[in-house]
Amino acid sequence: MKVAIVGASGETGGSIVKVLLESSTPKFEITALTRPASLTKPENLELEKRGVKLVACELDGPEDALVKSLSGQDVVISALEPAAFGAQMPLANASKVAGVKRFVPCAFATIAPPGVMKLRDDKEDVFNHVKKLYLPYTIIDVGWWFQLAVPRLSSGKTDYAIVVPENTAAGDGNVPSAFTDIRNIGQYVAMIISDPRTLNKMVFAYNEVATTNQIYELLEKLSGEKIDRTYLSADDIEAGLAQIEGSDDPMDLNKLWILQYLRSCGIRGDNNPEYARYLGYMDAKELYPYFKGNTLEKYFQEVLDGKAKSVYKKRKA
Amino acid sequence: MKVAIVGASGETGGSIVKVLLESSTPKFEITALTRPASLTKPENLELEKRGVKLVACELDGPEDALVKSLSGQDVVISALEPAAFGAQMPLANASKVAGVKRFVPCAFATIAPPGVMKLRDDKEDVFNHVKKLYLPYTIIDVGWWFQLAVPRLSSGKTDYAIVVPENTAAGDGNVPSAFTDIRNIGQYVAMIISDPRTLNKMVFAYNEVATTNQIYELLEKLSGEKIDRTYLSADDIEAGLAQIEGSDDPMDLNKLWILQYLRSCGIRGDNNPEYARYLGYMDAKELYPYFKGNTLEKYFQEVLDGKAKSVYKKRKA
Repeated sequence: MKVAIVGASGETGGSIVKVLLESSTPKFEITALTRPASLTKPENLELEKRGVKLVACELDGPEDALVKSLSGQDVVISALEPAAFGAQMPLANASKVAGVKRFVPCAFATIAPPGVMKLRDDKEDVFNHVKKLYLPYTIIDVGWWFQLAVPRLSSGKTDYAIVVPENTAAGDGNVPSAFTDIRNIGQYVAMIISDPRTLNKMVFAYNEVATTNQIYELLEKLSGEKIDRTYLSADDIEAGLAQIEGSDDPMDLNKLWILQYLRSCGIRGDNNPEYARYLGYMDAKELYPYFKGNTLEKYFQEVLDGKAKSVYKKRKA
Repeated sequence: MKVAIVGASGETGGSIVKVLLESSTPKFEITALTRPASLTKPENLELEKRGVKLVACELDGPEDALVKSLSGQDVVISALEPAAFGAQMPLANASKVAGVKRFVPCAFATIAPPGVMKLRDDKEDVFNHVKKLYLPYTIIDVGWWFQLAVPRLSSGKTDYAIVVPENTAAGDGNVPSAFTDIRNIGQYVAMIISDPRTLNKMVFAYNEVATTNQIYELLEKLSGEKIDRTYLSADDIEAGLAQIEGSDDPMDLNKLWILQYLRSCGIRGDNNPEYARYLGYMDAKELYPYFKGNTLEKYFQEVLDGKAKSVYKKRKA
C-alpha cells in the first residue's frame, strides 16, 4: 500500500510514519511530501534513512506537479499544522485528479461539532471541500493526547514531560473525555487506512476515557503527592473568550484554542465516545477489539520513572 | 406516537400530515404548531377538522411557552419555508429542553454537499445547531419532486400541472438525478420516524432516478408530442450566477436557487443515491424494500389524463 504523507516530521505525522515503517502486513511504501527548502532538514534526512521516500513539492504550487507527485498513491495523509490547514485544499484537488483511493485530512484531535471550536471549524472547511470533490476519505480523531494530560507536581518530577505548566480543570473537573497515547496514533491509522469499512467514514480512535479529577487522582496515587489545581468555571471560560474576541494577536489565537478546548472537552463534554457516535463516528474499539492501546496509568508511571519523552520539544527549542 | 409539526399547511408538511393521519400502525397523534394569527386560516381549520390539534405559538417568542407546547411530543418535524429556516434554532432549543426524542429539521430536498447551494447551506446551519445541542435527529432528503419535473408540451396539455414554464436542461441533460412523488413523502416520513435505525442519521428517500433527457423522452412517448427544450451549459449557469452575485433582490434569490439546483443536480450530479451514500445517507430503498412509490411514467400519464394536481397553486393565487 502506497501512502503519501504531509507533515511527516510533526508529532502526529511522526507517530504515523514510525508505525507504518514497522508494519509488515500490510507493507506500507511511504512518501513524505516536503517543501523543497526542507528537503535537507535533519528530520527529513532521518526519515529518508529510515526508508521514507522524500518528494519535494509546494502544496500551493502548480497543480500538475502535485498531481504527478501523488499519482499511484493509494492513501494521502495530511498531518499539517493549523497554519497550513488551507494547503489541504489544493492537496485534495490534486489527490482527486491523481485518483488517490483514500484521503485522510488533518483531524487527529478531540471530538467537537461544528461551531464550538475555531480549530475544528477550520478542519470542517477542509472536510467539506473534500466532500464537494467526491474524493474518498476517512476522518480520524484521537481525542486528547496522554502527553498533553500530565499534571504538574510540586516536586517538579513531571516537569520534563509536561507542555502545559498549570493544572487547570474546566468546570467541576468531572466531565469524561477521551485520551490516547500519541504513540498509538500510528497504530490506529495503520489499521484504519487498511480497512474498507472505514472508507468515507469518521473514526474515533482513543485509548481511555477519564475526567480531569480522575487524572489528578491517578497521578496523586502513583506519586504520593497532592496536586494543586485551579478550576475554571464555564463563566470564567466565556469571559476569557470574550476578552480576546476579534484579536489577531497570535498569542491570543493560542489562548482561544486552549479555552475552546477546555469548554468543548471539559464543559460541553464533546470529546467522548457516546457523542462521537451521535455525530456519526465509528468507534475504533468496536472495529478493532483485539487492539489494546497504552493506559494513562502506565504512561504516568513512565513519566514518574523519568522515561517519558515530551512532545513539542523541538518546536520550543 | 405524538408528532408536532411546523409548516403543516405547506406542500411537504401537507403530504406528511395527510399520511400520518391515515396511518393506523403506528397511530400518530398530530399537533400542528401555528402562528397565533394563522389559527383561523382555512387551511388550519381544515387540518383541525381532520383530527390535527392546533397549537398557537411563536417560534421566536419566549422559550418557556414553546417548551410547554412541545413537552410530551415524541417527534418534531419542521417543514418550513426558506424564509423561516432560522426559526428552527429556537424550535430545536425548545425541543431539547422538552426532551423531544427525534427532531426532523427541514431538509426534504435534493442531495448536495455543503458549499454548493445557498438553500442547502442555510439548512446545514440548522443541522449543525441541532448537533451542537446533542438533540436526537433525523435528516430526510427526498430529491426533486415529480410535480416540479413535468415538461411543457406545445399543445399546452400539461400547463395546468406545471410550475416551471420552460423546459431547461442543465449541461447535456444526461446526468442522473433522483425524483419523488410529493404524495409519497408522507409515507417515507411515517416509516422513517418510526424506525430506530434512522435515529441520528440522514436518510435519502426517493422513488426513481432519471436524467432530464429521459424525462423528456418519457413524456414524448406518452404524449406523442415533440418537446422543445433549451440546454444550459455549465458556463451559462456560472455566468448567470455571476450576474446576480451579492444581489438582495428577492427575485434574484429565486433565480440563484434555480441556477444552483441546475448546477448541483444537472452538472455536478449531486442528487443521486451513490453520492448520497458517500455523504453518509442511508437509502430508503434498502431500509424499506417492500415499499413501492409512484413512478414518473404513472405520474406523467395522470397529468396527461387531466387528473393531476399542481403544487404551489395556493401560493400563486
